[in-house]
Amino acid sequence: MAGGRFISFEGIDGSGKSTQARRLAAALTHAGHRVIATREPGGSSGAEEIRRLLLEGATDRWSAETEILLFTAARRDHLERTIRPALDRGAWVVTDRFADSTRVYQGVTRGDLRAVVDRLHDLMIGVEPDLTVLIDIDPAEGLTRARARAGAEMRFEDMGIAVQARMRAAFLDLAAAAPARFAVIDGAQPADAVAAQVLAAVTARLGG
Amino acid sequence: MAGGRFISFEGIDGSGKSTQARRLAAALTHAGHRVIATREPGGSSGAEEIRRLLLEGATDRWSAETEILLFTAARRDHLERTIRPALDRGAWVVTDRFADSTRVYQGVTRGDLRAVVDRLHDLMIGVEPDLTVLIDIDPAEGLTRARARAGAEMRFEDMGIAVQARMRAAFLDLAAAAPARFAVIDGAQPADAVAAQVLAAVTARLGG
Repeated sequence: MAGGRFISFEGIDGSGKSTQARRLAAALTHAGHRVIATREPGGSSGAEEIRRLLLEGATDRWSAETEILLFTAARRDHLERTIRPALDRGAWVVTDRFADSTRVYQGVTRGDLRAVVDRLHDLMIGVEPDLTVLIDIDPAEGLTRARARAGAEMRFEDMGIAVQARMRAAFLDLAAAAPARFAVIDGAQPADAVAAQVLAAVTARLGG
Repeated sequence: MAGGRFISFEGIDGSGKSTQARRLAAALTHAGHRVIATREPGGSSGAEEIRRLLLEGATDRWSAETEILLFTAARRDHLERTIRPALDRGAWVVTDRFADSTRVYQGVTRGDLRAVVDRLHDLMIGVEPDLTVLIDIDPAEGLTRARARAGAEMRFEDMGIAVQARMRAAFLDLAAAAPARFAVIDGAQPADAVAAQVLAAVTARLGG
């Protein structure tokens, strides 16, 4: 086995990306890899504390700029304490969300901040996944699924279908701009079919 | 009275800057100004929560890079929620620490990050005080004073005299590089004399 691989899952709320991230991690483990399954915001003890600051409280608790700084601080901690050490040990890292989520969420809600997001990423993160799996789904379907779930962290999930549609388009734009990094999978299929396509894409792109 | 004025106090631990910031705020209030006395990290409800993340826990809880991001997030919130609204109302804002503290602390502990600190400041903060009062003191004297105080937030204060000496030099370097913004006051004088010199410097530079 060569060194580690770094895989992110992205998609709008209700796309099924978290389920698919878990399924891929299980499949890779079954194939004999050491696997770290993680998520953002969070994924390390410090980043999980920052996550609580981000996801609890009123929607206008932080400005978009402060929010971007907090997401970047959490990502830096996640990268240093969880992702890089795992990759250095030769593990495969599967994360539910990474920097593309910040690009899309902030880009949609505050389009004028997209350049700031990019400069902050270049300055403080500077790393992209080896492969980003975008689980693409119709926003109406995604929103129905998201609302069916219980959970207190609804802050980013309570934005309505128009916003979800814009985020879907933004994710697809990112994928079109970086085809070597992205694999776009149709999330409207049954979960088993999605999982099979994800695994096929991972194997084709990264070996294993 | 014209619009607001923005004044920061800086100095090594035990310099007496916090006391002097309070005394200046009181003197300005007595002179008829509306005054907001604040501090960093903190100074707004969100920034105070970030302060807790920064100052509690083990010294190596955050890397220098993550710490810079958290300080900048707290500063952005402080600026948006406390400083700018006060200045817009015509108040005088007196803050115990601002961006120079990050420049000095990170610059001393991780000199290779000074450029990152500056770029992050330019990108996300972009504001300097109208006047920065540097209370300059011999580190041996400052450390004795700092250690005499009770308080749990000793993380930045337990660094030893050699580090305090380097921070003093770094503050003086900043002051030398921006003489129009800085007033350097000898903190070894009795507190009343320091306060009188601070008020004189503020009046000379900012009117009032």
